[in-house]
Amino acid sequence: MTTLNETHDTALTSWVDSANDADSGFPVQNLPYAVYRRRGSQEAWRPGVAIGDRVLDLAALARQNPYDGLAAQALAACTGSNLNALMALGQPHWSALRLALSRALRAGSPLQGQLEPLLVAQADAEYTTPAHIGDYTDFYISLHHATAVGRQFRPDNPLLPNYKWVPIGYHGRASSIGVEQRFPRPVGQTRPSADGQAPQFGPCQRLDYELELGVYVGKGNAQGERIPLDQADEHVFGLCLLNDWSARDIQGWEYQPLGPFLAKNFASTISPWIVTMEALEPFRIAWNRQEGEPQPLPYLSSERNRTHGAYDVELEVFLATEASRQAGHAPARLSASNFRDAYWNIAQLIAHHTVNGCNLQPGDLLGTGTLSGPAPDQAGSLLELTQGGKTPIELPWGETRTFLQDGDQVILRAHCQKAGYPRIGFGEASGTVLPAR
Amino acid sequence: MTTLNETHDTALTSWVDSANDADSGFPVQNLPYAVYRRRGSQEAWRPGVAIGDRVLDLAALARQNPYDGLAAQALAACTGSNLNALMALGQPHWSALRLALSRALRAGSPLQGQLEPLLVAQADAEYTTPAHIGDYTDFYISLHHATAVGRQFRPDNPLLPNYKWVPIGYHGRASSIGVEQRFPRPVGQTRPSADGQAPQFGPCQRLDYELELGVYVGKGNAQGERIPLDQADEHVFGLCLLNDWSARDIQGWEYQPLGPFLAKNFASTISPWIVTMEALEPFRIAWNRQEGEPQPLPYLSSERNRTHGAYDVELEVFLATEASRQAGHAPARLSASNFRDAYWNIAQLIAHHTVNGCNLQPGDLLGTGTLSGPAPDQAGSLLELTQGGKTPIELPWGETRTFLQDGDQVILRAHCQKAGYPRIGFGEASGTVLPAR
Repeated sequence: MTTLNETHDTALTSWVDSANDADSGFPVQNLPYAVYRRRGSQEAWRPGVAIGDRVLDLAALARQNPYDGLAAQALAACTGSNLNALMALGQPHWSALRLALSRALRAGSPLQGQLEPLLVAQADAEYTTPAHIGDYTDFYISLHHATAVGRQFRPDNPLLPNYKWVPIGYHGRASSIGVEQRFPRPVGQTRPSADGQAPQFGPCQRLDYELELGVYVGKGNAQGERIPLDQADEHVFGLCLLNDWSARDIQGWEYQPLGPFLAKNFASTISPWIVTMEALEPFRIAWNRQEGEPQPLPYLSSERNRTHGAYDVELEVFLATEASRQAGHAPARLSASNFRDAYWNIAQLIAHHTVNGCNLQPGDLLGTGTLSGPAPDQAGSLLELTQGGKTPIELPWGETRTFLQDGDQVILRAHCQKAGYPRIGFGEASGTVLPAR
Repeated sequence: MTTLNETHDTALTSWVDSANDADSGFPVQNLPYAVYRRRGSQEAWRPGVAIGDRVLDLAALARQNPYDGLAAQALAACTGSNLNALMALGQPHWSALRLALSRALRAGSPLQGQLEPLLVAQADAEYTTPAHIGDYTDFYISLHHATAVGRQFRPDNPLLPNYKWVPIGYHGRASSIGVEQRFPRPVGQTRPSADGQAPQFGPCQRLDYELELGVYVGKGNAQGERIPLDQADEHVFGLCLLNDWSARDIQGWEYQPLGPFLAKNFASTISPWIVTMEALEPFRIAWNRQEGEPQPLPYLSSERNRTHGAYDVELEVFLATEASRQAGHAPARLSASNFRDAYWNIAQLIAHHTVNGCNLQPGDLLGTGTLSGPAPDQAGSLLELTQGGKTPIELPWGETRTFLQDGDQVILRAHCQKAGYPRIGFGEASGTVLPAR
């Protein structure tokens, strides 16, 4: 179990000046991981850690071999083209490396001279998927989203009887997950215009985003063995942003009885940075069911989970369009919500996923599902914000949107903030819709 | 496009005598691939090809480097612990290696003396998953299965309106796919005994098998690009058997609205051997919709697909129990069906899966879904054979079954057979249910 330690000390500053900017998002208390190289180069992809507006090259640091013990073992796992080896090591190794990097990057570190040549400006870097994602599971943990969307697919039956008992999830496509994606509008079948007619076929007309967080599995479990709720923390490495692009018209026609398929698997955009659970420790909060809601079954319920189950993470969605970019407007904020409003929490997802003996592996990604809040303007998708396309939203530069147009760029951002603690940023997940092929 | 060639010559025999036995299943016209090592050893897993009751060590053959050109390149891709590199090369390479192996293993080959030391008895070998399966997709292509199962989950609405237009599929779990699996009975939530009550929780009471074929993707496609129907053959490497174990009671409670999850992802058992599409070429048959059925949309329809779309593959399910093993009975055959009776075919699955730009990768596995035939005794699951557990089946040694009991072993087998051609076998997919933990 992670606890607060010297790496969370609010008095710490870094010898990388930009990390001490209150809005940096990447102070020395954060230290998120990514896999990067110099933009446009043919260099090997390698793990890095963010500090202010820089990336520290962990593969190069590993070659200098400045540590011993667990930190050295953890750093030695940061020399490949993904973070799976580090993820597989487990919490004591993750903590040891975090402490070592915190000490190395804080003001006054004797390693400053040695590390300065290993820094690259984030503006000069490009990123790739930071883990080999063996399996991707998407959950559905916002009651507000499930109700709003359910109403549109099943007006008479928005919330199914299982929702308040089962953390509903399904398997998604791992191969089409990427960072900074630019993808053609998907093509496919949609519902016939009249019963008994052939379906319609063509480019999706109701293309949407979904505002989610992604949870990276750290240590896995053997097939046939479950991860108990109170051990789940040891199996979670960190969080990223996740845009689960959705073709609503394809989804509406294909999804019964086995769930969404082509409506989702053409692209899923993640943020390059993984914010570790240890960096988020100061933002753990109690998790409680509201009065009148059923208490979870015993395998999804514990005192520890009630007192520490949730995280306070602010989420935002921004939209830029062809027109806004040409006119030089900043992206417009479409909505904001908070992870704390979810109906289920991360430990419950891990315990549920493995209760039947399903094996998780390092690098697996669990999506939370769209994180809509209780208020209408906290909706995490256009489907919700526009009431199924019936009420267009107005953009500050005069355009309107029901669903996404070609050229639209959706940007997800997240951060943690509280008085007296530096802002912990997630960076952003950005993706752009191209015309259908 | 593969065509019949000298490797399909029925006059060919092998210098490995057991390959010439009419019932071998692994004659020189088959040449399926697996990844194996000597049973109980710590040897490296390596690709092998079956000939009669032997396995030829392809990694060792590659070190001898007896070929040049495409065959040498293909053989050089057979030195790792999976077949993904070979799968990625594509049809010309696969054909070249098949031809080279056919010539090397046929009677009179000058390579006999060189190859004999590279053979191991299959009885002395153990197998592992032959590919790194990046993504696993399960389809639902038997109309007979979809109707029978639909009737049990939705009595008033067994076949949904999309079924005859959309090759229904969903993403499954890749991590829990394996060969010769022995897994504990899954545990989970099931439907409350009365509306408004808490769900029940415990070991699955309605554990079932599903008789399927698995389709290994060979060459992949880039994200955003689709594979046209008539190019699908170039992207399919071969077939295996697949048992998609299913916890029907967990499935019934969890599956709406996003599809099956914990009901399926605890285990999926494949056969170790991959029968290549080229070996199956003599068993291609026309694919036709029965009169009165709608014709597929243009992206799922072509002259070539109608004349060559289907395969004639006989499938069988066998059951052994604790009691039958103790009494020395042979496993009982529960049912038999044929792949030709499926409503959709392999090329259609590939074209549909990629029509939205979803990227397939070498080694991806597509399940067909349960291959039930039109007659009740051709059902590919206990759910169908026992009418949802209402009508127990009687086993020859006096036991009955509605769903699977602890200790039950399910064995799937398949073969292709026609007059004047040696039997092409698939080996078997075998898995055993252990008590819940």
